[in-house]
Amino acid sequence: MIYKIAHIGVAVKNIEEVEKLYAEVLNLPVRGREESKENKVAFIPVGDTAIELLQGMTPDAPIARFIEKKGEGIHHIAYQVDNIEKALEEMKAKGVALIDEKPRRGAHNSQIAFLHPQGTYGLLIELVEPEKGH
Amino acid sequence: MIYKIAHIGVAVKNIEEVEKLYAEVLNLPVRGREESKENKVAFIPVGDTAIELLQGMTPDAPIARFIEKKGEGIHHIAYQVDNIEKALEEMKAKGVALIDEKPRRGAHNSQIAFLHPQGTYGLLIELVEPEKGH
Repeated sequence: MIYKIAHIGVAVKNIEEVEKLYAEVLNLPVRGREESKENKVAFIPVGDTAIELLQGMTPDAPIARFIEKKGEGIHHIAYQVDNIEKALEEMKAKGVALIDEKPRRGAHNSQIAFLHPQGTYGLLIELVEPEKGH
Repeated sequence: MIYKIAHIGVAVKNIEEVEKLYAEVLNLPVRGREESKENKVAFIPVGDTAIELLQGMTPDAPIARFIEKKGEGIHHIAYQVDNIEKALEEMKAKGVALIDEKPRRGAHNSQIAFLHPQGTYGLLIELVEPEKGH
């Protein structure tokens, strides 16, 4: 069902500064940028997964509020599934608490859903089904 | 230089409980266990990387102290390099602050070194060179 980590989401205050750390220190350049109402996003591929840098667009954005509470650092891990509706059904049947009972739209036209962090030992877990053909 | 994420280290209080979450909810079973003086370790492969669960052996262990300060959750990301001595030399030349200036022994006979978290925006970054032939 899960065959890889789609990305590791990292909450940052200044996305350009952190991009420099990855590009110059680790030799891992950004390969995609995206902007939504909530977030500036930068994708940095590493092997079969990616680092997803996230900066909130406003002080009220969930990522900005996360940083206020916990500081900069890893925000979530996204596991790639081939059928997110089926994965969510299976999890509901097992009694897993979900934030999103139905998938919603994520970056790059993917479908995403978050598990409820209560019961995942301090980890925010996302499921992602990529856009068909990607 | 870096060609994949070797593992994502997750600090947990009760490794057996968290193993159950991965095995039963995410269908990701443990494929290796190890114990040192400091830590109980469980490896859970996902795609070309792995989740590394870490539980401190004593309340004084660095992982236990991390949890006391920050709670359970992601402790570090380990990037795999083919030549750790060379990678550390290159980073020193760039002025990157390091915890380990020379590699030390990690799990599975790997060689590891940590970058200093000052200047990595809330992330603890490890470099790892696997045992030759692995």
